[in-house]
Amino acid sequence: MDTIFYNGMIRTQDNAYPACSAVAVKGGVIMRLGCDEEILPLAGKNTKTVDLAGKLMLPGFIDTHLHMLNYIEFLEQVNLSEARSLRQVQELCAAKVGQAAEKGKWLGGVSFNQDHWEVPQMPTRKDLDAISQDVPIVIRRACFNMSVVNTKGMEMLGIMGEREGLTQMLLGFYDDGTPNGIIRQHSQDILAKAVTIPALEDIKEMILKACAHMAKQGITSVHSEDYINYAVDSSELIARAYKELAAEGKLPLRVYQQCAFRTKEQLEAFLATENKPGAEFGRYKIGPLKVFEDGALGARTACLKDGYLNDPGKKGILIHPKEELYELFATAHKNGMQIATHCIGDEALDVTMDAYERVMNEYPRVDPRHGIIHCQLMTCGQQERFRQLNIIGYVQPVFIESDMNIVDDCVGSDLAKQSYNWRAYIDMGVHISGSSDCPVEAFDILPNICYCVTRSKKDGSKTWYPENGITIDEAVRMFTLEGAYASFEEAVKGSITVGKYADLVVVDRDIYQIEPGEIQDAQVLMTVVNGEIIYKR
Amino acid sequence: MDTIFYNGMIRTQDNAYPACSAVAVKGGVIMRLGCDEEILPLAGKNTKTVDLAGKLMLPGFIDTHLHMLNYIEFLEQVNLSEARSLRQVQELCAAKVGQAAEKGKWLGGVSFNQDHWEVPQMPTRKDLDAISQDVPIVIRRACFNMSVVNTKGMEMLGIMGEREGLTQMLLGFYDDGTPNGIIRQHSQDILAKAVTIPALEDIKEMILKACAHMAKQGITSVHSEDYINYAVDSSELIARAYKELAAEGKLPLRVYQQCAFRTKEQLEAFLATENKPGAEFGRYKIGPLKVFEDGALGARTACLKDGYLNDPGKKGILIHPKEELYELFATAHKNGMQIATHCIGDEALDVTMDAYERVMNEYPRVDPRHGIIHCQLMTCGQQERFRQLNIIGYVQPVFIESDMNIVDDCVGSDLAKQSYNWRAYIDMGVHISGSSDCPVEAFDILPNICYCVTRSKKDGSKTWYPENGITIDEAVRMFTLEGAYASFEEAVKGSITVGKYADLVVVDRDIYQIEPGEIQDAQVLMTVVNGEIIYKR
Ligand SMILES: [Zn+2]
Ligand SMILES: [Zn+2]
Repeated sequence: MDTIFYNGMIRTQDNAYPACSAVAVKGGVIMRLGCDEEILPLAGKNTKTVDLAGKLMLPGFIDTHLHMLNYIEFLEQVNLSEARSLRQVQELCAAKVGQAAEKGKWLGGVSFNQDHWEVPQMPTRKDLDAISQDVPIVIRRACFNMSVVNTKGMEMLGIMGEREGLTQMLLGFYDDGTPNGIIRQHSQDILAKAVTIPALEDIKEMILKACAHMAKQGITSVHSEDYINYAVDSSELIARAYKELAAEGKLPLRVYQQCAFRTKEQLEAFLATENKPGAEFGRYKIGPLKVFEDGALGARTACLKDGYLNDPGKKGILIHPKEELYELFATAHKNGMQIATHCIGDEALDVTMDAYERVMNEYPRVDPRHGIIHCQLMTCGQQERFRQLNIIGYVQPVFIESDMNIVDDCVGSDLAKQSYNWRAYIDMGVHISGSSDCPVEAFDILPNICYCVTRSKKDGSKTWYPENGITIDEAVRMFTLEGAYASFEEAVKGSITVGKYADLVVVDRDIYQIEPGEIQDAQVLMTVVNGEIIYKR
Repeated sequence: MDTIFYNGMIRTQDNAYPACSAVAVKGGVIMRLGCDEEILPLAGKNTKTVDLAGKLMLPGFIDTHLHMLNYIEFLEQVNLSEARSLRQVQELCAAKVGQAAEKGKWLGGVSFNQDHWEVPQMPTRKDLDAISQDVPIVIRRACFNMSVVNTKGMEMLGIMGEREGLTQMLLGFYDDGTPNGIIRQHSQDILAKAVTIPALEDIKEMILKACAHMAKQGITSVHSEDYINYAVDSSELIARAYKELAAEGKLPLRVYQQCAFRTKEQLEAFLATENKPGAEFGRYKIGPLKVFEDGALGARTACLKDGYLNDPGKKGILIHPKEELYELFATAHKNGMQIATHCIGDEALDVTMDAYERVMNEYPRVDPRHGIIHCQLMTCGQQERFRQLNIIGYVQPVFIESDMNIVDDCVGSDLAKQSYNWRAYIDMGVHISGSSDCPVEAFDILPNICYCVTRSKKDGSKTWYPENGITIDEAVRMFTLEGAYASFEEAVKGSITVGKYADLVVVDRDIYQIEPGEIQDAQVLMTVVNGEIIYKR
């Protein structure tokens, strides 16, 4: 054996053999499971033995939706997530404005969320002008669906002259009809002018940096969406960066690419290359077509059937009209490609489910595993539709930390209590995997697992429809075996089973035994991918 | 929808949705499951609706080990399975001897089993000379491991001159040292001289005939071993026959080929062609390397650690010496090929498990799913080894009908009660699938399921270690979902799940509700492959 981990509290997620204390690994594969007395004698003179000191070992965590490159870019920008007022946003930005001026770059701020402010009011262009009128500034909302630009920036983008009613762009306007600096949804593409696409080697470095950070959280596999990170289709460049790292043996994690494309033509061009659905390039695997069908709740762009109760007349937006969505889906589906669609509102969900049903009926094929990313607002009847069509869900438990503040106001408690209902999915036998949508939220898995169980805020100050919560074991499964299922890899990873990849995580306490509220405090001690320890605390 | 089956008692084998009354099918795929009220409205004007009249529908049956071509050849030979004396064997053969003489062919008899005779004595050459001294005659024991030839036949084979102690062949001898006509194990290869390998078109016809018969038993997928049916390696010819049928859209069932080869060189030559492990040619898929490692219990060639209690000094035979077995396994394993090995005795099992462990340790790879076909005699400790190495089992429940007469005598009750222990496999989480080994036994699935539950003889006259039996649901799983697992296809078949192939069977009574002993009387009413009704009673 290469390595034997022993003296552990190993919870396998394999119902056939749920727990043991030791695991023997060779050539990246789990070779044997058992008690220490059975496994330790398998050690040869070159076997490394690792004493787990009674700690909890789980299958390596799998995050099924995040944005790896975007996460790194976020690190280099002003983090506004902790700001609790417009004033604080201005102060945080002001501290970095000189630096941006020196480099001749835009000043970027990320992850603001006015819902957390003392006065929850959307900032506008003039608020940012107070920071600088000479340096272009853009701040992006935590949900990604909205950015605010200062006057200098708006001028540089060439949209300062737009007037309400005369533009096709999704801009916000002051009462006088001039732009207020708010740019919504895909209109944010214009901000590509404010960024420079990094060179291949820089992208490779960013990937490695992101992987190193994720390894600290016990993540061994990730589904990452990166192709339109720079607003334009950069699939060729980014796929090349991943493939080179994989070929060089440098990619520490297994990456399943969620391939975001906005048009059928872009997708067709992509599929005409070597990037066939499910194609594996070492640890880099071509995953589903990723489609956006609506926006976000905080930005009030999530598309709701009955509109926003707290913003009468507003219904949110549908990104792709029905026929266009169908064409995009049909192109992927006919080519044997999986599909994962961003839907937050119940109207977006219906439109997307209709399109799924249509392509599946028109071109029946086995085991497509199409899914809905986020799947937040919905009725029980809509959830039942997941079961009927065998659609999978990708949920972000951490979202409830802030969403529990606004959902009931936005849609009313009747719909709210049917929504984010992880309990119902599992009871119906619907496959749901867990994810962070990082950098929308941090990719820390253990706090995510905590939210699944407690349905409470971090500080315990509020619990939200706890009856929709799930057990700790179900929560762990969401971030392990169900994550593997989402990439058609449940036979080779997602549980600690003889014959699967040795992708493992060690946690500093047994999260099955402690108070659920304390799961968020648990720390990852060690992360193992393919039998190699890639992180140790 | 193409077809809607409704008003049924549908037991899905999908834990997430165990039962329903209606299933909608399109393009060969299960599109929707539900109650009649949900599913019937999906019917369009071209939809065929099939009233199941309250009958039981299950996933299509999967038989994971049989010999399709051999079965057809058996049909054309004298069936001796019902004979209860040597006299009856002679009478049954005598009735057909004229016909064989006319055609200038050998007279072949199959499936005799002297253990069922009034006087259970092995027949010899002179017993067959009483039928004819001019027409060559060969009769084969039900277990396949032994044949008996008359004097004319022995002369034509050129082995009448062999003497005890001077031949390498596994022959039987009279006290005077001359051959008694009994030919054992691989020495039966010489009987190839007695058969003619059919032409391609004839093989295709034989396959179609076998499939039609299997369809009547509700079989929708089969793992068939055919390559050395004519004693010599006929893999090229036989694979071609299957592939042509598949390409012509004529193959009614899904066939997973168990690729029997005797030598490493034959296997290497095979793998150098388009026949890569897991390669799919329509419904024909390249399956595991099939290896024989011992013989059979009735013929006393199954290899036992402690020998035959009722035949002191006899231990059975090992077909491949350890090193040769290892070389064969290593060739398959390194090429990514699954392996399935015939083992009946506990000694053969140890040797085979050792070789599996060695190749897996030396060349670790994920999810190999190597297995043991038959896996009859073993200790609890050996069964535990299935779990440790994640080895799968292929069991033939029907074998207990005759084996319960002899096992305790052969090996003693202590080993007997640990053997054929399906309960233990399932409790340990070991994957076991069900099969018939037809033409060794009939491929009727429902009687096989009955044996799983009752552990009793057909007529109820004896029950054998009933504590080793399993539940009806577990038994059905052995012949459905576990069968799919054995060919790496659990994601696309083996349960009635939206997105899987519409492979279905309808049975005339609810075998979950009736007296277990009556399960064997249940009849298949309808068999559906890929949404098409291929058999209807
Ligand atoms: Zn996202
Ligand atoms: Zn066989």
